[in-house]
Amino acid sequence: MDSVVVREAKKSNEVDAQGTREVLGSLTRACDARGMNGLTDRLADINRWLEQDLTDVEREIAHVAKGGDTLAEKSARHLLDRGGKRLRPICVALASRMGSGFNPAARTFAIAVELVHNATLLHDDVVDLGDMRRGAPAARVIYGNAASIFGGDWLLVEALTRVQAANVPGVLDRALAVIREMVIAEAWQLERRGRVGATAREYFEIARGKTASLFRWAMFAGARAGGTTDDVCAALEEYGTHLGLAFQIVDDVLDFDGEAAELGKSLFIDLREGKMTYPLIVAMQKSSELFPLLEEVCRDSEVTLSPDLAKRIHTIVQNTGATRISLELAQEMCTEATNCLSRLPTGRARDALAQVALAIPQRRK
Amino acid sequence: MDSVVVREAKKSNEVDAQGTREVLGSLTRACDARGMNGLTDRLADINRWLEQDLTDVEREIAHVAKGGDTLAEKSARHLLDRGGKRLRPICVALASRMGSGFNPAARTFAIAVELVHNATLLHDDVVDLGDMRRGAPAARVIYGNAASIFGGDWLLVEALTRVQAANVPGVLDRALAVIREMVIAEAWQLERRGRVGATAREYFEIARGKTASLFRWAMFAGARAGGTTDDVCAALEEYGTHLGLAFQIVDDVLDFDGEAAELGKSLFIDLREGKMTYPLIVAMQKSSELFPLLEEVCRDSEVTLSPDLAKRIHTIVQNTGATRISLELAQEMCTEATNCLSRLPTGRARDALAQVALAIPQRRK
Repeated sequence: MDSVVVREAKKSNEVDAQGTREVLGSLTRACDARGMNGLTDRLADINRWLEQDLTDVEREIAHVAKGGDTLAEKSARHLLDRGGKRLRPICVALASRMGSGFNPAARTFAIAVELVHNATLLHDDVVDLGDMRRGAPAARVIYGNAASIFGGDWLLVEALTRVQAANVPGVLDRALAVIREMVIAEAWQLERRGRVGATAREYFEIARGKTASLFRWAMFAGARAGGTTDDVCAALEEYGTHLGLAFQIVDDVLDFDGEAAELGKSLFIDLREGKMTYPLIVAMQKSSELFPLLEEVCRDSEVTLSPDLAKRIHTIVQNTGATRISLELAQEMCTEATNCLSRLPTGRARDALAQVALAIPQRRK
Repeated sequence: MDSVVVREAKKSNEVDAQGTREVLGSLTRACDARGMNGLTDRLADINRWLEQDLTDVEREIAHVAKGGDTLAEKSARHLLDRGGKRLRPICVALASRMGSGFNPAARTFAIAVELVHNATLLHDDVVDLGDMRRGAPAARVIYGNAASIFGGDWLLVEALTRVQAANVPGVLDRALAVIREMVIAEAWQLERRGRVGATAREYFEIARGKTASLFRWAMFAGARAGGTTDDVCAALEEYGTHLGLAFQIVDDVLDFDGEAAELGKSLFIDLREGKMTYPLIVAMQKSSELFPLLEEVCRDSEVTLSPDLAKRIHTIVQNTGATRISLELAQEMCTEATNCLSRLPTGRARDALAQVALAIPQRRK
């Protein structure tokens, strides 16, 4: 379904002459397909503002994947062509617009952040043996694990090459530091798999590394490209961290509550991988029943989750109100993100960032 | 056995006061353990010259792996601690000594080239499902495939971070281009697996990308660190390409002829992975018997090689003289490498590079 995004983006390039209304309609459909229904509603008035930015990014991402014909490139293309929310490029675009605007350096970083994100997805799917991604079979299912490993390596290098070429002081250093942080957090999460007694503190350390760090970098890179002051840049980075943490919590909630079919994956995927999501951690604090059940699921090195057990766990988690509590925390994080914006000059970009923060807890896929 | 290298390197640090003879003895043992027996004989008189360079590199590599305690770092440490020939750092050291010498930038590149090499080994072992590496169980056997994937990602970022920090114009760009080349060549090789009708041309394109490119970069980075002229740098790069191709051919020959136990792997590993090595390509040109046998091995997507079939293939390859022909070509490549040196100023570094080229076809593990 997400390939609609690419098609729509391409179409929207071709219809410049047919007027604004049609383009906006196409963009709205593209945003819907990206799972940004909440975002679409909230961002209706800024869609047009970002239109050219996102179209340019989409065109270049399509171009990256067209480069070659090895299994590495095919795997990467398969994933990139499925679209995705492109939320990180949107972050870069808005951060750059807090400064001088979405210039070529900002565009480069918007593309790079999406390539890094996709690189980690290719490797994660091999690590997790994930079968579905963005509503379609994962690249590793079609081209094999080996192809996905090389595909991830390739996208990482493509991203870094672009960041390097943009030649904005400090941005490459930070990109490398962030990728390192992501890898270390992923490795740490790997080690914690199946350990039921995870704490909220551990959870947030991992989420900060594996998810929030790239959102932070998106804001940093956009700000640096736009030439904002250091204070503005720092506030935007803080916003990015809060936004990323909220994003991860909502992602966890969707493992219990999401529109699974639309998300292209079944529920409890995280639990099947032995990952202690935030709702599980909350629910364990609220109900003593849950811990022994999760221990049963993770007893052997192989995680096994019978339909009966899945149902019982789902009921307990729901009864504790853990998903509601998790979403409330995500909301709080987004409020904190919005608070960071108070340190920024007022204007359209700041308003748009506030709207993005409001939309995150509303995403449903 | 290769961990002797690290031990010896550490020891050689501690015994400065005990005089040259003991240190040289230790270095010779370290070189022996690195599979550089031919090299040791030939380089006896320059061992001492490179002593401090290699000790510094070894110390820093040991330090890299000590950083953290996630599965990514544990996997990387396992591989790095096993030593290895460290031939690429030696190339950096000698190239830098064609200029102003083994300065901090050159040391950084010597470490980085080894980290990149080890990153590719971690990913390759997952791709090939390799069980042994450097005479010990592969990292993926001990810590799992997922850990090796993250370990490779981590080493790649560690390497690039160092190259970036050294801040020598052009060297990071080239590092990224070379890693891209390596990944694409590996992916191409992956796609060609089990296709018996490989041509020598295809073979060399892959070998150039997956192996020679990093040797070329080692020479380039060393030359740039040493501040050589562009002409000297170009000659050194060409030397690196020839050396790398020769290295790959010898590696292929060792899959048939090597001291398997010392190499820490069994024979025919490449063939079991469906890879058409250079001796196989030569032997197919010489004997019509071989093609159908290899087709039998690679008939299904799963490569199967019975002991009987392995023996028959081994006999045919030996009878065609393919390993001798392959080694002769490796020798020729090394002669071409040496010819490149004629464009360089005479001196100890040039002589040493000539000795390295002479030693490559003599390596036996």
